[in-house]
Amino acid sequence: MLGGALRGETKMPKNAFYAQSGGVSAVINTSACGLIETARRHRRHIGKVYAGRDGIIGALTEDLIDTSAESRQAIAALRHTPGGAFGSCRYKLKGLEENRAQYERLIEVCRAHDIGYFFYNGGGDSMDTANKVSKIGRTLGYPLTCIGVPKTVDNDLPVTDNSPGFGSVAKYIAVSIREAGLDVLSMARTSTKIFVLEVMGRHAGWIAASAGLAGSKPGEPPHIILFPEIPFDEAAFLARVKETVGRYGYCVIAVSEGVRDPEGRFLSDMGTRDAFGHAQLGGVGQVVAEMIKRAHGYKFHWALADYLQRSARHIASRVDVEQAYAVGKAAVELAVAGETAVMPIIVRTSNSPYRWRIGSAKLDKVANQEKKMPRSYITKDGFGITAACRRYLEPLIQGEDYPPYRDGLPKYVQLANKAVKKKLATTFAI
Amino acid sequence: MLGGALRGETKMPKNAFYAQSGGVSAVINTSACGLIETARRHRRHIGKVYAGRDGIIGALTEDLIDTSAESRQAIAALRHTPGGAFGSCRYKLKGLEENRAQYERLIEVCRAHDIGYFFYNGGGDSMDTANKVSKIGRTLGYPLTCIGVPKTVDNDLPVTDNSPGFGSVAKYIAVSIREAGLDVLSMARTSTKIFVLEVMGRHAGWIAASAGLAGSKPGEPPHIILFPEIPFDEAAFLARVKETVGRYGYCVIAVSEGVRDPEGRFLSDMGTRDAFGHAQLGGVGQVVAEMIKRAHGYKFHWALADYLQRSARHIASRVDVEQAYAVGKAAVELAVAGETAVMPIIVRTSNSPYRWRIGSAKLDKVANQEKKMPRSYITKDGFGITAACRRYLEPLIQGEDYPPYRDGLPKYVQLANKAVKKKLATTFAI
Repeated sequence: MLGGALRGETKMPKNAFYAQSGGVSAVINTSACGLIETARRHRRHIGKVYAGRDGIIGALTEDLIDTSAESRQAIAALRHTPGGAFGSCRYKLKGLEENRAQYERLIEVCRAHDIGYFFYNGGGDSMDTANKVSKIGRTLGYPLTCIGVPKTVDNDLPVTDNSPGFGSVAKYIAVSIREAGLDVLSMARTSTKIFVLEVMGRHAGWIAASAGLAGSKPGEPPHIILFPEIPFDEAAFLARVKETVGRYGYCVIAVSEGVRDPEGRFLSDMGTRDAFGHAQLGGVGQVVAEMIKRAHGYKFHWALADYLQRSARHIASRVDVEQAYAVGKAAVELAVAGETAVMPIIVRTSNSPYRWRIGSAKLDKVANQEKKMPRSYITKDGFGITAACRRYLEPLIQGEDYPPYRDGLPKYVQLANKAVKKKLATTFAI
Repeated sequence: MLGGALRGETKMPKNAFYAQSGGVSAVINTSACGLIETARRHRRHIGKVYAGRDGIIGALTEDLIDTSAESRQAIAALRHTPGGAFGSCRYKLKGLEENRAQYERLIEVCRAHDIGYFFYNGGGDSMDTANKVSKIGRTLGYPLTCIGVPKTVDNDLPVTDNSPGFGSVAKYIAVSIREAGLDVLSMARTSTKIFVLEVMGRHAGWIAASAGLAGSKPGEPPHIILFPEIPFDEAAFLARVKETVGRYGYCVIAVSEGVRDPEGRFLSDMGTRDAFGHAQLGGVGQVVAEMIKRAHGYKFHWALADYLQRSARHIASRVDVEQAYAVGKAAVELAVAGETAVMPIIVRTSNSPYRWRIGSAKLDKVANQEKKMPRSYITKDGFGITAACRRYLEPLIQGEDYPPYRDGLPKYVQLANKAVKKKLATTFAI
């Protein structure tokens, strides 16, 4: 068995496959950095690290990147470079029964390139894929060490206390709300009274909740947060906006893209039409802002952070960066220790002072589950975060981890991404 | 004459009035900091600095803030605090003939509070107001030393090489485009191919141009910039998008909110309708993104930075911060030197290495004029910036000037803003 062979005996090292999956983040490359740097320190076990070009597609099409061709400095710079350095993809493998050929192809490519380790850096779907690859490998007589590496800005992975990628988005959103809040406060008497920031989070309100960190005293923005977990109550919302403007002169709102009305329809679906009258998704911030304008007449501004929030490496959380690196490093350490079908997790051991360590969880425990905000983290009125939520979130945005700058701009690395020579005669259609 | 009296003779010091005007910025408080700190070092000339609460409205309503009640530390913290610490307003004084009462009221308030200096921190309109106040003061036998302090994120003030506030927006936009560009590049193969960032700039394309700093090599984002100075050519634009996606796999676009079609209509006016079918302004980013989707079918994301761009003190340009402080300081120095009806300006003395000094300009030379992008700063095809533009812009985003942090968030100051006791029996309706 491969696991046993890895426990320090004479077997030759195997190569490793690493892929980034799904929406990227400010620190997914930090995990890649931790993984590759650690693999380079375990040459007795791990040969080369091959990255999938554009994620798992790279494995299926035998389009592999030889990370050993990158200098130590280039790999080190991944630590502070946002986006996905090897390319990612939105491509969910089907079930084993539906498309066994995909899995067989993965094994074929691994076998051809002497790959013994399969590292998959992504969210819940990706953990499910890694788990299936682990099973099919055994079935096909080519056992792979399969390790998931957690990544999701949505913070919706279960078991782990939090997910790398989230802390930096949370920090970006909290900082942005604090800054924009000061702007609106300045202008409110004669101009803008309402500011709405639309944030990511289709199903879980973690990112919206992080806006709540911006204010700690009564009256400080954001005054209202709209969560996907709470059905939107238009009357209560409009009343709260009016009360807030009456009391403080302005109202700052953070709204999750996934907010739904009591019938379960996305609010973003209710509003704008394009020039041809087609309903458009997206723009719930605008929907909400215009609802206020119609009801109360207040002048508004709204912002849509979109990709800016998840790529904002310039304001990354130091805790997030450290954890992202740590899960990449731990993935390799688990692998060389003979573990498989597991994912490193972040275990919180203390809130104040904040302390954490790396643990691990079985992939079948983390796959395909979404961790939503507990109701106890949302205030009774549904418009804010509780003290318990603040205790959970606050440690995750601690510390700054500024990238180096050149000519006034962050100096991000772009890898050469040298292709590994193909060995298979067959191709595979995506 | 007041000017003469200030040149070091025995006359008692006069108080100063300071107001923030129009849209605020990441560094307008930095100018306030420079002004107040410098005034505190000239006690022989300047007594207390009174700030207008919510800008000029504070002067008209005799709602003055006593900045002398603020500690040295609080004033120092203005240097790194975005927004307008005393409140700003969008309130343009009418012409002298149309509403002489407004100007007379200003003089009445100044006289009541022994104010001899009038500092007005804003854009072109504000410089016009400061100039008029200077004239009316003389006419009414109450000569005021009137100094403009330049501020505009739009960078559209004439005579000065650039305007405080702009450099930090430029840095924010360039950093954001670079970061989001890496994100889109990662995802482009199977998902988002088009990313559109809408930026401020109703009439002048300086902010849009700053996006161009993000890329220096061919193929680096942004691939297309849309300027208000260039009439929008839909066919040429769509062809360029297709060509870009064909060549690089994705296309990143920065679009100014002020882009117009060849007939002069705002592009933002052409697109979305609300649920009642009303045309909506704003959202030119979405208009452009959907135009691409209809023509080519590419999946898109778009972002609207809105107030985030002009309040992003966390990523302010150090050059901008230094210049914002310098114009506040110079305003006081000009005043105590006996100058009036002038504005400190930034004079560029060298591009490489970048060197600048403070000069001054007569208010009537800077009032009510908009400095647009010269055609020579925009590439022939209208979609990018030239080397000359880059030479102009690049120095303005140099250096970082991070605010202090506490609990993971920037530690911005909120002043007590203690009111000065009213002395007038009369009120004034705004």
